[in-house]
Amino acid sequence: MDKVNISDKLDHIDTYWNPHLVGELNGQHVKLSKVKGDFVWHHHADADEMFLVIKGRLVLRMRDRDVILDPGEFYIMPRGVEHLPIAEEEVHLMLFEPEGTLNTGNVRNERTVDNPEWA
Amino acid sequence: MDKVNISDKLDHIDTYWNPHLVGELNGQHVKLSKVKGDFVWHHHADADEMFLVIKGRLVLRMRDRDVILDPGEFYIMPRGVEHLPIAEEEVHLMLFEPEGTLNTGNVRNERTVDNPEWA
Repeated sequence: MDKVNISDKLDHIDTYWNPHLVGELNGQHVKLSKVKGDFVWHHHADADEMFLVIKGRLVLRMRDRDVILDPGEFYIMPRGVEHLPIAEEEVHLMLFEPEGTLNTGNVRNERTVDNPEWA
Repeated sequence: MDKVNISDKLDHIDTYWNPHLVGELNGQHVKLSKVKGDFVWHHHADADEMFLVIKGRLVLRMRDRDVILDPGEFYIMPRGVEHLPIAEEEVHLMLFEPEGTLNTGNVRNERTVDNPEWA
């Protein structure tokens, strides 16, 4: 594969909450996503998930606290922990998680993306 | 664990080619490193390695070509591919690779870091 320019790839994403693949290594996927608004409460039973903010401010709401991420900050959500991602304004995210991790985790609704496409 | 501010963590690193741990998930490590100069030709037999440039310009020399990374760009070096990282000026890097990946891969020399410390 070639190198990836994150900004160039983000330019190709024009829908919210629709993570796109940009890399794979060691059974893990690297994804980019544009998000805005509230997502859905969910957890991933068997996957830790890393959220790295590229642009904007992301709130990761958990049942007992919020983590607030600005650009250049990341948080690793441990497997099994319920969370609700919230973006008051548009946020650009990089995600690291195992191949096959569903964006809505244990929940299935209209935002579930079964087969993320490559950006 | 708490959120990680990449810039804050980099402020604590004052040696070159000495990757520091900043996260772990799904058997993978997230590391930050400051590098300058030529490293050493090596490969990782069983690990793909992701190089994400935060600051500066990194050249990933392979036997048949160079990949040049500027800030906001990444490259996934496939397992088994010999490479020589080169930084003419100081470069700040984020790395993703399996736990236990040795920075010098199949080579052992004065730059080998057996047990990376946390930043």
